Amino acid sequence: MTHQNRRRLHRPFPTAGAIGALFLAASTGGALAQGTPETCAAAPDAPAHHTVKASADTVHWGYFSKTLEPAVAIHSGDLVTIETLTHHANDDASRMVTGDPGAESVFHWEAGDKGVNRRGAGPVDASIHGRGAGEGFGVHILTGPIYVCGAEPGDVLKVEILDLKPRPSANPEHVGKTFGSNAAAWWGYHYNDLLTEPKKREVITIYELDSTGKEDWAQAVYSFQWTPQTDPDGVVHETIDYPGVPVDHATVEEKPALTGVRVPIRPHFGTMGVAPADADFVDSIPPSSFGGNIDNWRVGAGGTMYYPIAVEGALLSAGDPHAAQGDSELAGTAIETSLTGLVRVTLLKSDALEGTPVEGLDFPLLETAHEWVVHGFSYADYLKDLGDAAQSEIYSKSSVDGAMRDAFRKMRSFLMTAYGLNEDEAISLMSVASDFGVTQVVDGNWGVHGVVEKRLFAGR
Amino acid sequence: MTHQNRRRLHRPFPTAGAIGALFLAASTGGALAQGTPETCAAAPDAPAHHTVKASADTVHWGYFSKTLEPAVAIHSGDLVTIETLTHHANDDASRMVTGDPGAESVFHWEAGDKGVNRRGAGPVDASIHGRGAGEGFGVHILTGPIYVCGAEPGDVLKVEILDLKPRPSANPEHVGKTFGSNAAAWWGYHYNDLLTEPKKREVITIYELDSTGKEDWAQAVYSFQWTPQTDPDGVVHETIDYPGVPVDHATVEEKPALTGVRVPIRPHFGTMGVAPADADFVDSIPPSSFGGNIDNWRVGAGGTMYYPIAVEGALLSAGDPHAAQGDSELAGTAIETSLTGLVRVTLLKSDALEGTPVEGLDFPLLETAHEWVVHGFSYADYLKDLGDAAQSEIYSKSSVDGAMRDAFRKMRSFLMTAYGLNEDEAISLMSVASDFGVTQVVDGNWGVHGVVEKRLFAGR
Repeated sequence: MTHQNRRRLHRPFPTAGAIGALFLAASTGGALAQGTPETCAAAPDAPAHHTVKASADTVHWGYFSKTLEPAVAIHSGDLVTIETLTHHANDDASRMVTGDPGAESVFHWEAGDKGVNRRGAGPVDASIHGRGAGEGFGVHILTGPIYVCGAEPGDVLKVEILDLKPRPSANPEHVGKTFGSNAAAWWGYHYNDLLTEPKKREVITIYELDSTGKEDWAQAVYSFQWTPQTDPDGVVHETIDYPGVPVDHATVEEKPALTGVRVPIRPHFGTMGVAPADADFVDSIPPSSFGGNIDNWRVGAGGTMYYPIAVEGALLSAGDPHAAQGDSELAGTAIETSLTGLVRVTLLKSDALEGTPVEGLDFPLLETAHEWVVHGFSYADYLKDLGDAAQSEIYSKSSVDGAMRDAFRKMRSFLMTAYGLNEDEAISLMSVASDFGVTQVVDGNWGVHGVVEKRLFAGR
Repeated sequence: MTHQNRRRLHRPFPTAGAIGALFLAASTGGALAQGTPETCAAAPDAPAHHTVKASADTVHWGYFSKTLEPAVAIHSGDLVTIETLTHHANDDASRMVTGDPGAESVFHWEAGDKGVNRRGAGPVDASIHGRGAGEGFGVHILTGPIYVCGAEPGDVLKVEILDLKPRPSANPEHVGKTFGSNAAAWWGYHYNDLLTEPKKREVITIYELDSTGKEDWAQAVYSFQWTPQTDPDGVVHETIDYPGVPVDHATVEEKPALTGVRVPIRPHFGTMGVAPADADFVDSIPPSSFGGNIDNWRVGAGGTMYYPIAVEGALLSAGDPHAAQGDSELAGTAIETSLTGLVRVTLLKSDALEGTPVEGLDFPLLETAHEWVVHGFSYADYLKDLGDAAQSEIYSKSSVDGAMRDAFRKMRSFLMTAYGLNEDEAISLMSVASDFGVTQVVDGNWGVHGVVEKRLFAGR
């Protein structure tokens, strides 16, 4: 089985009319069975339910791109079951890859032959560091993109997460279990601030959780310190510098970890967003106005995300699934676990936004049953704010202070827009009733979120 | 009635033996009725219940000081009912001062005659800005200090907040109501970042809440923009630059605000802490290792604070009561409301700390029914970290980034100490299960707190 370059790119981005032909050309599996080439042309009678399975054909790894061929085209109001894979599955392939056709398709890697060759927004020839195609400038396996018929820049995409379930291990030795990996990695907040030797170590902790939904916690299975890993193409990875490198467990020492500790699970998409307009290939790590790697554990079942659409078709992708994460994602990762979501995608056209909570929306907004959550970043729209070198410079400009400032401005704007408060009312209310938290300090464009409860306004 | 300089200071700090005499000399009201001069000499048969009413005799305004004469001396395990007054009561004296003997005693101000003259850690002769005695370098009315018999540096003080109730308005027009003030002030995070004119305005919003505990929300009554206020000594306050200045409501325009909005109440002590060792007079605004103005809304009924003791007797004070505050306290204040607390104070001697969660504690730690909360600051111990000019320099060095770094280190230390985790376990657990939030961005030494749930460890 060879997967070399199976995922094609196209540019310029096709018109809606061209999508059909591209879909036909790309259709190699079940992903497009319901998203037919005629989808955008024909007005639907009722909402359709699409399924996008995760495979080398339906994922893009480490980047967002407006040039990507869609995995499926849908109408506003359609349901999509979307499989998402953790990019950390090869930290313990026997628990997270083996026997799972979708994961095996994506993680397939023999010398000169990868299921998904490009991993990251870097050069395909790996001419910068030689790490591998895409250079690992971006790490997340993203399923999609989903083309939303009729979506145009200026519109808002509403994504309701109706369900989100762990993907069971396909290994018969681990029936009923799902596994995840937490990497305390070189990009973690702690890395240059360790107390104990050996300094600058990276440590991976493998967690397990129940696949059936009966237990709502995860627990550690073992941990190991990263050792240099040689990938099938012969590149040695001294650190975790390229996603999907298979860990040779003969080279690491598995140790017990966190005995007796139960971590409450909070399944969520670490990364979900629409394609940015400002660059053809955008590193999946820094979140921004288009959403992306927000890493807010509140983006789970019952949550609804609103994204400002920047390109035709919106091009929604999701991935980086997490079983649990704390606000700050301190060590650099969550419990990185494959999940399958059910989402309803609704297009809110720009001419119908006036007077709604998302009028003028220029950032990713989360609605939960009881709360609104605004997302601030060190730079609100870093691709625009930092110019041509944005994708490298953002990593040297991370700050919680910048993110707090941005979150304040967004919460003020939201309260004034959504509830018609004047500025003084918004500021007083923020001070007495809105909680600001540190979303993450590990994603280049660091995040602070602001939360306001809906019940404050029940009497209006 | 004259109150001039009624509150005396003494230095050097007395030995335990000298306290009795000082108590006798200072005893002018009910505060010392139960905390007798003999308290520390005689071993108690059972825990005593002391009451410290708020009056000009029992409060210190705007500073912590190891040189303060105690309001009461207690034994470990004693209960204390402690009245605390908001320093914003004179924003609407008719609702928050009039008819209330304690508040009238504290807020009394005629030309040349103040109930509490010194307000702040600045010079008593106001030779820097001429604002008034103490210069308003520190603003909170603090009740105490409470001298804890046997407390020595290196010990830890445990303060359980058993109850915390709103102080009813004494004005017959407002029976059953308690009022509070939220000032969007010049020290607020928003102040230099306003959208609408007039820029650099200060706005006060008066809130009301139920005094009886039947309703768990507050709502705005009205708001007004601050106008220059002339105090009884003739000093004009263009901004809110000195605490307790009576607002002349003939000079301000009261407007409706936040109609129909209900703010869930979260009564808590904005400021509580022990006396610092590193300076005689310490501005009450920046929180630090001794606690102080932490401004975490979780420090409410059911919460337990642990403070590292820095001076003999610990000298616990509480004040800055809040009806509600959001994480960040963005505009500079909460709903500032007088409250009465019931606390149990327990002394944990240094030689009994080994193997407990507070072994080696060097920061203020909060325990709630379900959580542990560590408090990080821009500078962990700013009086030591910044040297002689610390009390002014801290205001130019505020950062959320510094506070996040400190909170990370404290959470790691706490998990390793309290639960015996190794460093790698602590870091993984923080990343997947601990939430970091922005406590406040308005108190000079800005704060980030880290929260970890106790239930994680139920199986150990």
